[in-house]
Amino acid sequence: MKRQRVGFQGERGAFSEVAAQKMRKGKLNLVPFPSFPAMFRALAARKVDYATVPIENTLAGSVHENYDLLLKHRLPILAETNIRIVHNLIAAPGATLRTIHKVYSHPVALRQCIRFLEKHGKWEVVPFYDTAGSVKMILEKKLQDSAAIASKAAAQVYGGRILVKDIGDDRENYTRFFLLGPRSAANALSTGKKTSIVFVTRNLPGSLFRCLSVFALRDIDLTKIESRPLRGRPWEYLFYLDFQGNPSDPSVRNALKNLSEITEFLRVLGCYPTIG
Amino acid sequence: MKRQRVGFQGERGAFSEVAAQKMRKGKLNLVPFPSFPAMFRALAARKVDYATVPIENTLAGSVHENYDLLLKHRLPILAETNIRIVHNLIAAPGATLRTIHKVYSHPVALRQCIRFLEKHGKWEVVPFYDTAGSVKMILEKKLQDSAAIASKAAAQVYGGRILVKDIGDDRENYTRFFLLGPRSAANALSTGKKTSIVFVTRNLPGSLFRCLSVFALRDIDLTKIESRPLRGRPWEYLFYLDFQGNPSDPSVRNALKNLSEITEFLRVLGCYPTIG
Repeated sequence: MKRQRVGFQGERGAFSEVAAQKMRKGKLNLVPFPSFPAMFRALAARKVDYATVPIENTLAGSVHENYDLLLKHRLPILAETNIRIVHNLIAAPGATLRTIHKVYSHPVALRQCIRFLEKHGKWEVVPFYDTAGSVKMILEKKLQDSAAIASKAAAQVYGGRILVKDIGDDRENYTRFFLLGPRSAANALSTGKKTSIVFVTRNLPGSLFRCLSVFALRDIDLTKIESRPLRGRPWEYLFYLDFQGNPSDPSVRNALKNLSEITEFLRVLGCYPTIG
Repeated sequence: MKRQRVGFQGERGAFSEVAAQKMRKGKLNLVPFPSFPAMFRALAARKVDYATVPIENTLAGSVHENYDLLLKHRLPILAETNIRIVHNLIAAPGATLRTIHKVYSHPVALRQCIRFLEKHGKWEVVPFYDTAGSVKMILEKKLQDSAAIASKAAAQVYGGRILVKDIGDDRENYTRFFLLGPRSAANALSTGKKTSIVFVTRNLPGSLFRCLSVFALRDIDLTKIESRPLRGRPWEYLFYLDFQGNPSDPSVRNALKNLSEITEFLRVLGCYPTIG
């Protein structure tokens, strides 16, 4: 059987790779991409079978670039999962806390470990393009004066040693990921319990309220709302909504039918299970 | 009379500086800051009298970092304005389109001029920390092979020449700015027609719908909703809302009173005029 090709953004050992392995079981051919647009283009062109997309983090908020790419590419959401982000201080064999003078990582990870870094106030903090990439660089160069902040998976992939584990300021640090599939998978029968949509309201007072009413009046529970600017129409917005329910439920089907009557544009981005 | 000290983020000639001059008339002492957190801290410590804060752009979306800082610092919004973002190709005297091989600017500005840059596909595109800062660097070094993408104001401040004006892909490129003042200004009588608030709903199905109903039932027009993660409570959110109206209107006063009954937390961030 052919291995499933699953795209992710970042270097081997990225948190996205951990998420990919949780959402697709079995032997995977994990394909790294330098950017999110490159990954979406590869999935649209069937160069990979699936793509792993971080969509929001409980500390940093939504990954707005990926909301825009979901709209642009029409690639269906097949699953979601949450990963606890555990940051570790990782170094090359031989290095110790005493030999370290510099710490490399992605700026978001550095910001999430401020208390730990303040305890080591003499260390130079160097922003790097990727968390796992900073481990890769340190191990390739066998640096003894530098450490990286990244996942346990990154330490394993590149042979790094974890000097201090779980150094993040806030333990409630989770990232939610989507698994996207090819456009042909959009109509597959889904037993998913959650649905994501995007819509544009008519530009009238009270229009967002009316759109939310189609869910509230049917006791459908909204779990997330996100707004993005509508191109070409300054100060108007696209709304992305997640809710509990499946379009095969009559109440959800009716809510979406009702919503389509009062919106200018409506698209279902996916109906998917939550992988625990 | 003492000059008003107005903080802005970026180098002299930044779009924020243009916004500052629109919102505070008269002689200003414009004070640049390297980051938004540094500027908010300076205003909280009364080292400046006002601060200029970009809050959303019609192409790139909200500046989420500044939403978080508005919540953290309790500095009132005193005014808002919209600035059309006009990107220009700027070079040192003597340089021409033929001598240019490299273009520097902030990554957001570079992304907004993709069509222009594709027409000059041989130019190397170099991300830089600031739009106006890229003009400053090129003029200081008197580079003949490089150009910057920045505002007309930046060309004037550093003595650059505009080689091509208005090179952005999308003419509908506007940034909305807030002028923040000291905490003592929060209770000043305002004749502003717009109000911004932030709140946390009770975590119950339909709670956002109920919160919006207090405005809809009184025909108060919402102009913007933004959500940000609530720290320590994964997958719960803070909501930022802008609406037309002033808390001295009975209907707005009643809506806010009603909202405070059904929310866990509610704060008015400001009530302010729109400077045209």
